Amino acid sequence: MGQKKSKKSAGTPFSDALRVGEGFLLSDLDPRATPAFDGDKSDGEEALADADDEIDDLQERLYANGQSGGTQKVLLLIQGLDTAGKGGIMRHVVGAVDPQGTEITAFKSPTQEELDHPFLWRIRKALPEAGMIGVFDRSHYEDVLIVRVEELVEPAVWARRYSTINEFEQSLVDDDTTLIKVMLHISHEEQGERLAERLERPDKFWKYNPGDIDTRLQWDAYMQAYQDIMDKTSTEHAPWFVVPADRKWYARLAVQQLLREHLAALDLEWPPADFDVTKEQKRLKKTTR
Amino acid sequence: MGQKKSKKSAGTPFSDALRVGEGFLLSDLDPRATPAFDGDKSDGEEALADADDEIDDLQERLYANGQSGGTQKVLLLIQGLDTAGKGGIMRHVVGAVDPQGTEITAFKSPTQEELDHPFLWRIRKALPEAGMIGVFDRSHYEDVLIVRVEELVEPAVWARRYSTINEFEQSLVDDDTTLIKVMLHISHEEQGERLAERLERPDKFWKYNPGDIDTRLQWDAYMQAYQDIMDKTSTEHAPWFVVPADRKWYARLAVQQLLREHLAALDLEWPPADFDVTKEQKRLKKTTR
Repeated sequence: MGQKKSKKSAGTPFSDALRVGEGFLLSDLDPRATPAFDGDKSDGEEALADADDEIDDLQERLYANGQSGGTQKVLLLIQGLDTAGKGGIMRHVVGAVDPQGTEITAFKSPTQEELDHPFLWRIRKALPEAGMIGVFDRSHYEDVLIVRVEELVEPAVWARRYSTINEFEQSLVDDDTTLIKVMLHISHEEQGERLAERLERPDKFWKYNPGDIDTRLQWDAYMQAYQDIMDKTSTEHAPWFVVPADRKWYARLAVQQLLREHLAALDLEWPPADFDVTKEQKRLKKTTR
Repeated sequence: MGQKKSKKSAGTPFSDALRVGEGFLLSDLDPRATPAFDGDKSDGEEALADADDEIDDLQERLYANGQSGGTQKVLLLIQGLDTAGKGGIMRHVVGAVDPQGTEITAFKSPTQEELDHPFLWRIRKALPEAGMIGVFDRSHYEDVLIVRVEELVEPAVWARRYSTINEFEQSLVDDDTTLIKVMLHISHEEQGERLAERLERPDKFWKYNPGDIDTRLQWDAYMQAYQDIMDKTSTEHAPWFVVPADRKWYARLAVQQLLREHLAALDLEWPPADFDVTKEQKRLKKTTR
């Protein structure tokens, strides 16, 4: 398969173009930009479809190795405000990968049992096994986002969590986890339009929650909380990737390509046979009727 | 969307053509047959792709209702011998459905913890929640298949399980579960060819297990065990559907259509708004910057 570049690729890997480094400012990022990609919507949709076969192959190698004693696993973590497009990523990007090799966990408001445990407890229970691609729809970062903005715990408590998270993520990497942390970044205006759509279409009512407006009213506080996350937890071992998400087609392509690039970097071979192939072929022949 | 019939549909629903009724004999079924479908492979692949949008819509209604207090859920249970194509069903049929609304559980050799509990214990833990499509890759039927053929428990123990299973499945149906029980039926010859392929291609070695031949040597005992399952557990409330599976394209189409027909029969509307739409539209407008 190799790492065939999309026709409209700008030549830079998405991982480089979107990685959060020193001095990153969320407020400087244009949510309508399309880093690492030169094409338009139809080019983007074509590039998305074109990459399916390569991702299939890469994912199956990961899974096959996991079934054969390999220890590598992948964790794709998706954060973003309401309507940022997390569901679309699950459906169109994760949904294109073999469901036997992926496991989505959506982290909602914690249950009482979860609240009775340290904040990473429910996260640890959902970590991917060897060979799997785990996908988090929201994550432990909510414990320094909504928890901070809504003042659900004391400031001293959430303030300690950044370093706890960094240590936790280091332990995942040490355990052969490829961690891909993605923030979908939409504009205030785009969120308004997407919420309005949910209030216009009866087939979208079920996605709407009056609480979404309360959250929207805290927009600046959320942006500040995200900026702090980028400043404090975009580490060498587990960097963040911020994806401009006002254009849904671009966000989907970008997340898919981040996944593709990280899988390809594992450079996995098919596991060798752990049995005598010739002997098994002879045994099989004897079963012919 | 409606229930648009595929161009090459034979007019009979797949649910009727494949349902196991009184006097069914597995040995009479041709594994290369294509009940309820008149077309060839390329027609079948086209029909499979054509149904995606309708299934998307039906699945989303189920999910939306589950999020809004509805109690309906679906359980698609897939059985079949090694190489019968269970993995292909997961990948190509289940994989085409929104992964947020599906949950695959693969039941392998039971762990010690599972063995220390009644055989339905691990099954109950994996049942779908309201709004979800649960998918079982193997199931509690292994407890009257491999367990019987390999004599892992006394005959008196497995013999009691058929009625236990019937009662269990009745309780699922009473709990608003639509149960779709599918056996993928391949011929002895086709299994031989598929195993041979796994022994020829280095990218397939990981799927091969020398134990597959041991199982194959027990072919007749497995066929008898499946026949007994059909005789004893294809009930009014939870019938079996036996899908001829020597042609992979047909098996995929048939399982997809069984899913589509069962979802359509639920006849679900979009849940109404549980908030005041006009009031929310006004609140949203006020957030414009």
